[in-house]
Amino acid sequence: MERIPILQMGEHLLVTIQVDLHDQLATRLQEELTQEISARNARGVIIEISSLEMVDSFIGRVLGNIAQMSKLLSAETVLVGMTPAVAITLVELGIELPGILTALNVERGMALLRDRQDAPLHGSGASAEVSPDSAG
Amino acid sequence: MERIPILQMGEHLLVTIQVDLHDQLATRLQEELTQEISARNARGVIIEISSLEMVDSFIGRVLGNIAQMSKLLSAETVLVGMTPAVAITLVELGIELPGILTALNVERGMALLRDRQDAPLHGSGASAEVSPDSAG
Repeated sequence: MERIPILQMGEHLLVTIQVDLHDQLATRLQEELTQEISARNARGVIIEISSLEMVDSFIGRVLGNIAQMSKLLSAETVLVGMTPAVAITLVELGIELPGILTALNVERGMALLRDRQDAPLHGSGASAEVSPDSAG
Repeated sequence: MERIPILQMGEHLLVTIQVDLHDQLATRLQEELTQEISARNARGVIIEISSLEMVDSFIGRVLGNIAQMSKLLSAETVLVGMTPAVAITLVELGIELPGILTALNVERGMALLRDRQDAPLHGSGASAEVSPDSAG
């Protein structure tokens, strides 16, 4: 019954997570998102989590899986809208989000995806795992 | 506890409704949305409802209120992502959505807002209450 909508914004897909990501919903999101990336030829996925008050290791793993699946379909994943409380919790609990870029909000996330897609693909790219905002 | 996130996309705000809009949540959305329109100087509001399987007269009224409040703050409201089933129900139950534009999806909704904002404000504008897609 529950469904997380996947919205197309140009070359990118936008997913806002507002509800608790239980097992079944997470699986469904992964399936639908990979289908959409493939069907719409998307180059990036933006996941907005400003409504989430908590990110535990389960959600961290789901987000990591989504990022890896997207990468296999050559789309990059940016996590946006994280609240300060969630950022603190992630660090304190030692939860990592491998392969996921982060940005402060949707607009910066889209800018980050555009920047990375305009940039040449060679090079280590290690510094780009951090949002450009943190450099300012 | 529940919160519907309001995302800024350039001059427009995007709201995806995924959960049941009960009284309290609807009131909170109206408050936050009007505050955001004012604070961010937004010219349009896009409300995405592809997750809603049902739109009853209560939700219709909430959406109508949002459109009227936004209009007072000079922002237009576009409802996007309506499922065919919801469109049928709205017509069969005779629920009207006064002052609300509709478009098939977020991209067309943004295009509709841009078109209307580029267009001169004089003239009756009556024909613009229908999405340009319906003309094709």
